Amino acid sequence: MGRPIDISEIKALTFDVFGTVVDWRSSIIRELREFGISQGTVIDWAGFADKWRAGYAPSMDMVRKGELPWTDIDTLHRMVLDRLLEEYNFTDMSEDEIEHLNNAWHRLTPWPDSVQGLERMRTSYTAATLSNGNVSLLVDLSKYGGLTWDCVLSSELAGHYKPDKEVYLTAAGLLGLSPEQMMMVAAHTDDLEAAKELEFATAYVSRPLEFGQGGTNDEYEDMPFDIIARDFNDLARKLGV
Amino acid sequence: MGRPIDISEIKALTFDVFGTVVDWRSSIIRELREFGISQGTVIDWAGFADKWRAGYAPSMDMVRKGELPWTDIDTLHRMVLDRLLEEYNFTDMSEDEIEHLNNAWHRLTPWPDSVQGLERMRTSYTAATLSNGNVSLLVDLSKYGGLTWDCVLSSELAGHYKPDKEVYLTAAGLLGLSPEQMMMVAAHTDDLEAAKELEFATAYVSRPLEFGQGGTNDEYEDMPFDIIARDFNDLARKLGV
Repeated sequence: MGRPIDISEIKALTFDVFGTVVDWRSSIIRELREFGISQGTVIDWAGFADKWRAGYAPSMDMVRKGELPWTDIDTLHRMVLDRLLEEYNFTDMSEDEIEHLNNAWHRLTPWPDSVQGLERMRTSYTAATLSNGNVSLLVDLSKYGGLTWDCVLSSELAGHYKPDKEVYLTAAGLLGLSPEQMMMVAAHTDDLEAAKELEFATAYVSRPLEFGQGGTNDEYEDMPFDIIARDFNDLARKLGV
Repeated sequence: MGRPIDISEIKALTFDVFGTVVDWRSSIIRELREFGISQGTVIDWAGFADKWRAGYAPSMDMVRKGELPWTDIDTLHRMVLDRLLEEYNFTDMSEDEIEHLNNAWHRLTPWPDSVQGLERMRTSYTAATLSNGNVSLLVDLSKYGGLTWDCVLSSELAGHYKPDKEVYLTAAGLLGLSPEQMMMVAAHTDDLEAAKELEFATAYVSRPLEFGQGGTNDEYEDMPFDIIARDFNDLARKLGV
């Protein structure tokens, strides 16, 4: 576990968003179903959603390795979507229809405990996003889902994607805090491991339905993070609020 | 006046903060008085406050002209404060005391209509700060004053100070909007003129007490801006919310 954390030292909580705060998968499936109705087509939209999500990591890695210049998530999502629309033979869509569909990632529904848990945590801590989503995406989905932040921080502000260290250090710098005063909150171990490496405190939140019923989520217990929580209300309680 | 604006086109309002959202002067005088009590000293704290504020524009201009590298407002405020403490002969203060005093700029009280007017505007628009204050200062003073934003935007994110055009264009870019979809809100004509030059819509808010009773504020009527409002509730009404 390393050093035990002193909760009273922590001033700001930075939150991963996709999967941790919002349920991207069921939201995207819902939007794809609406799209399917408009197209008079029924396919395995869950499979389409999973391919869309899976396609974004490799293109983000190309940015991380310098094989692509800085490209925001909206554009990366669109690149993957264009490939999938071709694969699934949707050939006569208008640009407006494609953009509306791509913007489904701006309309993601929070997990049931996110809004309330976040409100509780904001009473005692600065709460900020720290997501690979671009700023406008984060602003839109926060308004859509009724999520209130003290600050919207994004990989876009660092010109690097998580888990690159620049993202976490830029966040701490912008909040005027040292890493020890920051706690990274995520449902993904790679994100937390990168933050921990930089001396951030870390909180793992279990989101077993992120990849659907029977999907594989990270292991839940005995993880080397400072707090292990089953949802945002549990996290708030463990943070003493 | 140029083209009449189409209010339905506007998606985001960006707010100047010092003087427009918060009453920096009476807040700083209050903090200086507390400091004076701790030092057992009574001087003209209003005069001290005005000199502190007046000192920051020239140092910011040095950054704007490239005579100083990027330096955030906290540091600029501290440079001016160090000079004033010497001038007023406060020589035996601890570093903690000086930092606490410098951080008075993180504890500024909103004008009486700011919190409510902003809440109203957020129901129909994205509301963001767009201030020369650094991000951590804006986050702190928003929490202090109960101000809620959809996004905290700052000159710091552009590496330029208002009225440099990079600040306004960075804000529009981060929100994914065109200048015509943005409205700059300020109590200062130079800020609005710079935004207008870039095709932002503009709203002037009168803050006659910014520089104290009998202080000189910009002229109130017949200004070449899209909306002239007497406070944030009046602005909300004129924006149809």
